[in-house]
Order: sequence, then C-alpha cells, then structure tokens
Amino acid sequence: MDTATLWQRYQDWLYYHEGLGLYLDISRVRFDDAFVDQLQPKFEKAFKDLAALEGGAIANPDEHRMVGHYWLRNPDLAPTPELKQDIVETLEKIHTFTQKVHSGEIHPPDAPKFTDVLSVGIGGSALGPQFVAEALGVIDPPMTIHFMDNTDPAGIDRVLTKLNDRLASTLVIITSKSGGTPETRNGMLEVKHFYEQHGLNFAQHAVAVTGIGSKMEELAKSEGWIDIFPMHDWVGGRTSEMSAVGLLPAALQGIDIDAMLAGAKEMDDVTRQPTVKGNPSAMLALSWYYEGNGKGEKDMVMLPYKDSLLLFSRYLQQLVMESLGKEKDLDGNTVYQGIAVYGNKGSTDQHAYVQQLREGVPNFFVTFIEVLGDREGASIEVEPGATSGDFLSGLLQGTRQALYENDRNSITVTVPNVTPRLVGALIALYERAVSLYASLVNINAYHQPGVEAGKKAAATVLDLQRGVVKALKDAGQPISLTDLATKVGAPEKVETIYMIVRHLTANDRGVTITGDLGQPASLAIAAS
Amino acid sequence: MDTATLWQRYQDWLYYHEGLGLYLDISRVRFDDAFVDQLQPKFEKAFKDLAALEGGAIANPDEHRMVGHYWLRNPDLAPTPELKQDIVETLEKIHTFTQKVHSGEIHPPDAPKFTDVLSVGIGGSALGPQFVAEALGVIDPPMTIHFMDNTDPAGIDRVLTKLNDRLASTLVIITSKSGGTPETRNGMLEVKHFYEQHGLNFAQHAVAVTGIGSKMEELAKSEGWIDIFPMHDWVGGRTSEMSAVGLLPAALQGIDIDAMLAGAKEMDDVTRQPTVKGNPSAMLALSWYYEGNGKGEKDMVMLPYKDSLLLFSRYLQQLVMESLGKEKDLDGNTVYQGIAVYGNKGSTDQHAYVQQLREGVPNFFVTFIEVLGDREGASIEVEPGATSGDFLSGLLQGTRQALYENDRNSITVTVPNVTPRLVGALIALYERAVSLYASLVNINAYHQPGVEAGKKAAATVLDLQRGVVKALKDAGQPISLTDLATKVGAPEKVETIYMIVRHLTANDRGVTITGDLGQPASLAIAAS
Repeated sequence: MDTATLWQRYQDWLYYHEGLGLYLDISRVRFDDAFVDQLQPKFEKAFKDLAALEGGAIANPDEHRMVGHYWLRNPDLAPTPELKQDIVETLEKIHTFTQKVHSGEIHPPDAPKFTDVLSVGIGGSALGPQFVAEALGVIDPPMTIHFMDNTDPAGIDRVLTKLNDRLASTLVIITSKSGGTPETRNGMLEVKHFYEQHGLNFAQHAVAVTGIGSKMEELAKSEGWIDIFPMHDWVGGRTSEMSAVGLLPAALQGIDIDAMLAGAKEMDDVTRQPTVKGNPSAMLALSWYYEGNGKGEKDMVMLPYKDSLLLFSRYLQQLVMESLGKEKDLDGNTVYQGIAVYGNKGSTDQHAYVQQLREGVPNFFVTFIEVLGDREGASIEVEPGATSGDFLSGLLQGTRQALYENDRNSITVTVPNVTPRLVGALIALYERAVSLYASLVNINAYHQPGVEAGKKAAATVLDLQRGVVKALKDAGQPISLTDLATKVGAPEKVETIYMIVRHLTANDRGVTITGDLGQPASLAIAAS
Repeated sequence: MDTATLWQRYQDWLYYHEGLGLYLDISRVRFDDAFVDQLQPKFEKAFKDLAALEGGAIANPDEHRMVGHYWLRNPDLAPTPELKQDIVETLEKIHTFTQKVHSGEIHPPDAPKFTDVLSVGIGGSALGPQFVAEALGVIDPPMTIHFMDNTDPAGIDRVLTKLNDRLASTLVIITSKSGGTPETRNGMLEVKHFYEQHGLNFAQHAVAVTGIGSKMEELAKSEGWIDIFPMHDWVGGRTSEMSAVGLLPAALQGIDIDAMLAGAKEMDDVTRQPTVKGNPSAMLALSWYYEGNGKGEKDMVMLPYKDSLLLFSRYLQQLVMESLGKEKDLDGNTVYQGIAVYGNKGSTDQHAYVQQLREGVPNFFVTFIEVLGDREGASIEVEPGATSGDFLSGLLQGTRQALYENDRNSITVTVPNVTPRLVGALIALYERAVSLYASLVNINAYHQPGVEAGKKAAATVLDLQRGVVKALKDAGQPISLTDLATKVGAPEKVETIYMIVRHLTANDRGVTITGDLGQPASLAIAAS
C-alpha cells in the first residue's frame, strides 16, 4: 500500500471520541472491506447479544446468572428498581464511608486516623485495584495502599513486615465473593494472626467486600468487623473494578471514582452503536478477529508508552484470557478459544523483547497506548528542540512504523492523559470489546470453570498430604515412597506424595527423608 | 502413559544438583528417546559452540565480539591474563566502593551517608537489577533502591517526587554502555536538572557504569562524578547481571554478590557436561526445541510460585526473546526465530489467565518454579494440618497435573529457597540454556539489530519534528497537514507529521490545531 492510500485508510478508519479526547486507529491491521462485510452477520448478532445482556438476559448460562457490570456506571440501565437502588446505595455508602475514614470519624482503636489500606484479594479482587492504584495514584494520598494477592508465606511476611509500624492505623479490606477462595482466606487468617500477635483487635481494622449471604459476610458479622460492602453475583471478578471491589480502595486513596464511572459510562454509551465503524469496541473486536483468524492464532502484545499504565497489560491479560480462554463454545463444541495477552510498557520493552517483535516469530499483533500529555508542567530540552516526551513519542511512532513495514500489524489507542475518567473509559472500551468478541466466536465470556478445577485439584493434594502425615506416624519407621503411597491407599499417586514429602521436609513439618535425593526410589521417609 | 510409567519417566529424567539443592523435571514434556537421538548431532555442535565461546571465540560475529559473561563468575576462564585481571579488579572495586559508601567514608556533600540509590538505565541495564532487588531485597537494607527505566516524563517525575526528601543523600547510578541510549541519557539529564533545581551538585551524587572510552565516561570524568565502573564490550546488556551493571546496585543494597557469583559458577560448571541428560541447561534447551518444534511455535509461560520471583518472567522475557528473536540464522537464511515469554506468579495467575491455559488455545508450555522453603520461621495452620505454604504447594501441583492431563506440557524447576546463591544459579541455568538453544537453531544470540533500528526510526521522527516546528514558524499562518508535509519536504510522511503535531499541541509546545479533530484533512496547523 503506498503512503497516500495508507493515509487515506488511516483517516477512513480513525475513531475519535470528542468528549473523552480518545482516538483509536486500526489502519495498521490489514483487513479489507470484504472481511468487514463477511463479519457483518456475526456483528449483528454480537450487538444484539450485548443489548440483551445489558437488558438483564442470562448472559452467563452455565452459572445461570445475569451479567451486570455495565449497570454499575449507569444504574438507570439496571433491569429492576431493586437492582438500581442497590447500585446507587452501594456507591453512596462508599462515599460516606470514605469521607468518615478520611475525617477520622471512623478510626482504629489506637490511632486517630487510618493511614494505610491493606487490600487482601486475588485475581479479579486484586488486579483492577492494583492497576488503578498504579495508574492514578496521587501524590501525598490520604491513605497509602498495599496489596496481598497470594498465599505465599514469604510474600505475606514481606507485606506485613513493611506495614509493621503502621499496623495500628491500617484498614484491612478483605475481598472475596464467597469467602471460599483459599488464597484470600489464608491471607485474612495470616493478617488476623499478625494483628493478634501485636495485641491489636483485627475486627476493628477489618472491612469485608463480599457476596450477600457468603461465609465471609457471616464471619465479618459474627466478629464485628467495621463494615461490609456487597459483591453482587451479577458482577464477575474480572469486571468488578467499577463495583465496591475497585471503587472502595480507589476512593480511600483519594482517586476520583465518580470520574472513573463517568468515563466508563461515556464509553459504554458510544459502544452501543450497532455498526463496526464508529464503535471503538467493535473495531477492536474486528481487529482481534482478523489477527487471530477468530481462533486466537496471534498473541496480543500491549505496549502502553506511559509508566503509570504498566499494569494495564496484566489487567487485560486477566480480562481477555479468563473471559475468552474457553474449551467449549455455547453450543458445546470443542473450540479451545482464547487470545494470549502480554506486555509491560514502552519504550522500556523496546530494550527487551521488542527485538523479537521486530525480527522474530510473527505470532502476535501489538496494541500501542499513546498518552498525548507528557507531564504536569513544562519540560527541559534534552536535545535542541526535543524533550524526553518527544523521545517517548518518537520511539512509539518509529516502532509502530518499523513493525508495519515488517508485516507486523498494530492497533493504536490514544488518550490525552491518564486521568480517572480516561482509565474508566479504557476499562469500558476493553470490557465491551471482550463482550463483542465473545459473541463473534460464540463463547460464554462470563464464567471460569478452569479456576474452580484448580481449587479442587489443590484440595485433593492437601487431602493426600493429611493422609501422608498420618500414614508416616502410623508406620513408626522409615518407609519407601512406594510403600507410603500404598499405605495412603493411593499407589498411583506416588509422584504427588514425593512432592508433598519434599515440601514438608523443607519446612520442618515433622517429616524426614534419608537416601540419595536425586534418586526418589532410594528414599526412606519417616515421621520425626 | 499410565502413572507407573510416568513416575518411572519422572525418575529417569530427574536432574538434581546436590550442592545447590536444585531439581529440574522435564518429564511433562512429551518427547521420546527417538527425539533425543535425533537432536544429538545438533547438541554435539551446541556443546562445542559453547566451549568455544567460553574459550574466547568471536561468538557474536555480526559485532565481531567475544561473549564473556561466563568468565565473570570464574575469572580463571578468561582467555587472557588482562581480561582476568580486569574482572577481578572490578569486583574488588565494587566491594571497596560499597564498603566506603556504607561506612560513610564516601558520602554526599550535604549528608553524612548515602541512604538511597537511584538506578537510571533501561533494558539490560535495568531488568537484572530490578529482578534481583525484588527477589533478594533484604529487610532494613543499608540503602533503598529506586529505578528510572524509561523516557516517560510523568514516570520520571513520579520517581523524583518520591525521592524528594532524600535527594541530598541519594547516590545516582547511570548505567549505559555507550552513553548513547536516549532513554538513559534523558533520564540522566532530567535527574541532573532536578538536582540543580534543588541547589544540589549532581556530579557529587553520580556514578557511571559505562564502556571504557564511551561518551558517558568522558562526561563523568569531565564533570567529576564520584566514580566510574566499567562495562565491557564482551558482556551484553541482557547478560550483565554478574558484571558491575548488576553487582554494584545489588552490593549497595546489602545483597551478597559473592554468593550470587558462586551460585552462577556452580551452575556453569555442571552445564559444561556435553550430554543432554545430566545437564540442566541442555535439558531446558531440549524441551524448548521439542515444544516449539525448533521454531518457537509455542509460548513459554513462566509461573514462579513465590512472590519475590515475580520479575523473573520479565527478566527471562528479555533474555530469551532478545537473544533468540532473530530474522536471519548464522548462514543468512531468513528464519524468524524466537520464543515468546510471559508470566507473573502463581498461584495469583491461576485467578487470572490460567483459565485459558487450562482450557483455551494450546499455544504454550509452562515452566513452574517451585520454592520448597515457605518462609523464615513457623507457620500457623489455616486449616487442620495445612499452612498457607501447603496451599501454595498444592496449587502448583494441582495445576501442573491438570494441565498435563489436558495435553498441556510443563517443566518444573525446584529450588530450596530464594537466596543470592540460588538466584545466581537460576540466571546461569537460563543463560546457558539460551546459548545452547541458539546453537541448536543456528542463530547469533548475542546481538540485537532490531533495537538499533528502533533508535534510528525514532531519530528520524525527531528530525521531522524539528522540520515541522520550523516550517510552521516560516509559514506564518495556519496550513493543512498536506501543505505542512510538502513544506517539510516529506509529503509521504503526512501521517507521522499529524502525530507529531498532535503531541506538540497537547504539551503547549507552540503549535495549535483548529478544525474537526476526528477529520485530520480538515485541520489547520499553526505556530502559536
């Protein structure tokens, strides 16, 4: 394509949202008009599906649930007055609570104010809050946030050690829909234990964000936690940033959550338009479909050229891969769907893996996120007529151009600044692209059967561990792995038992191993 | 494969390093003996290539350079006495310097001691130090480290604002081989400007890590910086963690760099064994080759189940993709090589994208990193007989098992703890796997032509920007983009000019746009 034709294509497809000042360019994705026409019937269905979803349809059939995250930023859309009221009241409650915490009206027993927030949660209960904190963190915030997002004991200790001095003035938010997610439950118990060790009353520092009627809600009530915020069953974890899950920690950090909601609503509004051109979420879905042949054949590499957007790729990794990575389509056919997402930030990544993007395996497409505003205030010149921000901009452009010339396609999203409003809009842009793409490929984007399976597999290993400990005590003498497996009644699980034993031994948990460690068959295992 | 056969395969292939306590399991990669035999000739060449490289061969032919990072941890290997002396002296210099900084013998003009380190560098000059800081960061370190790894003005401001109070006691390390990497040069100029604004003498806070005879060395000498540490031309950025690039910041943070070097040396020693079985780096290279068909057809997903190893995947993303992502092989054939790498940490990622790994597009293989030791000290029980660490271990095992049952292969690396010695060993394990794999697929793993091309493309954009600003001033009235492009003498670059103008306008840089922003053809551009 000659440069004039390409410039015409750029203009033809350029999307611009005047209110938000947001641009989307998909001219560097090499689809043609025939391709757009060919997808037209699928898009018609996708637009209908999304309208039905917003209208309260059971869009998550496997779990027999409505999918309501779009109502959160426009409660008038909610299909019943009760749901609307629930959304409005929760938002009001977040504002009131935040105001009381910031003013000191709600304060810990041993300090005049809460100074820090510790957010305990994983996956959908962590990535949104982490992304938003990184993107929008204000200078000198009313409260400093910390995250505990795993069941790694050393990681837990690192977070708690850092908090040590301010434990008495830390507000702990435990976020878990059911209360049954083991990582979060474990984190909560470890934090509680740490508070108790320090002679502090955990309940008087704790807030729950959880499902109505969940085990976590019961616990919070029975222990007398400060407050409880609802997690609705019609909001999935990976789309919960605009629910209490995301809004509560954001508000406590002093981030303008109303602007975030407003930006998301503005994006929702324009992406209801039932045509591909002029609907930026549909334009993204079209591009993803083209690039991956509707089967995820190419990875989506996210390159925001702005440090504060570093976690956007990790946030989208969850949103896209957990939503789209499915074995079955809605008709029960085996499809192995999904799109792999990775990336960090530009131009930093240009000095890391962009070498491979430019020259190596062509198994990806790139999404550049351009931020027009460089910084607050003026810049020095680092070369005659050029600032650090000009370099950042030039590096983005140079890379986009060089990739295209080398037959590597890209999408470019341009925003004026990284503000709460624009972050809300970006989240909505991608949430809706995922909704539409899921319809194009006919899958349920709102469940995650594989995550449940992971928990079950782990529970099985832990049951086996209990059996192993008991069997070793009963044996009263060193035995081989094979004998141990037989005693536990799981001769086919000798490898799992070997790994359990190795882990227990390394942590002085009453199990010892003798023999040649490189030769599992030679080992003798005993209770110590 | 029935469980007994699989357990036998596990034991047959299990690698164990007694000194390090490190295990490697590749039993869940489905190669057979015929495949190993088939690769034997390639491996024989690879072992010879690596021996030649370590002996001082020009292993980076395009840049006509030796590749010496393995000498850094065993100076006796260096091919000349001068090189050996250089390595030994640099290490001594790092120790002496660190001791003097910690004791206060070397101190800033306005404070008794340096309290913080600001590391300015990008790519190979940042990722190693960042990974090591995150993995090995000690509690209450002698100095706290901060990183500036981009030319993003807002990102630079965020780092500097955070440092504000402690600027007078911050030691700034500028790491750049040539001094010509624009991001690092810009970072340096911005930091210097900030110091001057605060009435502080930048030179008396600055240290350079740079090539002998580089522009940066000249600058540091002429301005009288505190000290200069060498970056040798036979050490590439992505393999420079064991050179001054990685060792200086690590030592300043109180990390045991001798242990890191010793661990790497131990791993180097065993991975010289010229057989696949028993050589863990060769076992990795074999697995990568099998999984990607020697063409990078599958992505490498890194899942360390330990918070402190979060950045290992980003570190490896650079090491693997920048080394292997090449267009041409050593014979000049077009091959588009590489292996895409991504990942964060387990079990956190199980609540994000592991859904797709379990059920979706089977375009990857996983590497689990298992850490046997849970934490310092004892754990509470979070369920009868189970600790947080047992859950972490169970979740790893459950996921590994479930993936395998669903035909998704995996590698498992097990280490006893995350210590300097083990981190050194892990880095060496992967560096050598990359060296061997590069030989298997016949590419130069030690250059990065695409990175240079990126810089050039950006420079072209900046030249154009200067032309645009001049042309607008000369025009003296608003003109269209097309006219502007003609005046600049680059009618084919109207799109680039549009983007330049958009960026300048957003930053009050003396350029204004009028017209419909969604219709570039309607715009009139003027100097303001």
